[in-house]
Amino acid sequence: MAEDIKQKLGKRIKELRVKEEYSQEKLASRCGLHRTYISDIERGERNVSVENIEKIAKALKIEPRELMWF
Amino acid sequence: MAEDIKQKLGKRIKELRVKEEYSQEKLASRCGLHRTYISDIERGERNVSVENIEKIAKALKIEPRELMWF
Repeated sequence: MAEDIKQKLGKRIKELRVKEEYSQEKLASRCGLHRTYISDIERGERNVSVENIEKIAKALKIEPRELMWF
Repeated sequence: MAEDIKQKLGKRIKELRVKEEYSQEKLASRCGLHRTYISDIERGERNVSVENIEKIAKALKIEPRELMWF
């Protein structure tokens, strides 16, 4: 089955986090979110809101739209 | 005060909806969402999820990231 948008977003966040050499803990801390929430997002299990997309983008020092590059 | 991301997203959706010459009703119907929900989103009053961003983008015949062009 084709990936859904939650899975695409999760993969993209993981790719950018790893590129930045951040652990899930470090990204979570920079976002003010919980590590298990980041882990769920990366597995495509969360329907992330635009406010949390913005927090994650800021933590990764990129624009929100760059998280949607898929 | 600076616009928050919910307000930026709402303005962008409205701009693209008007460009497409869709009423809020028509966009809502194409998305499978309620007209009042679209109205709330356009006023920046909803923390829209990535699944609904995808529905709105499809209804507007664009990529999700184009809704984040701000």
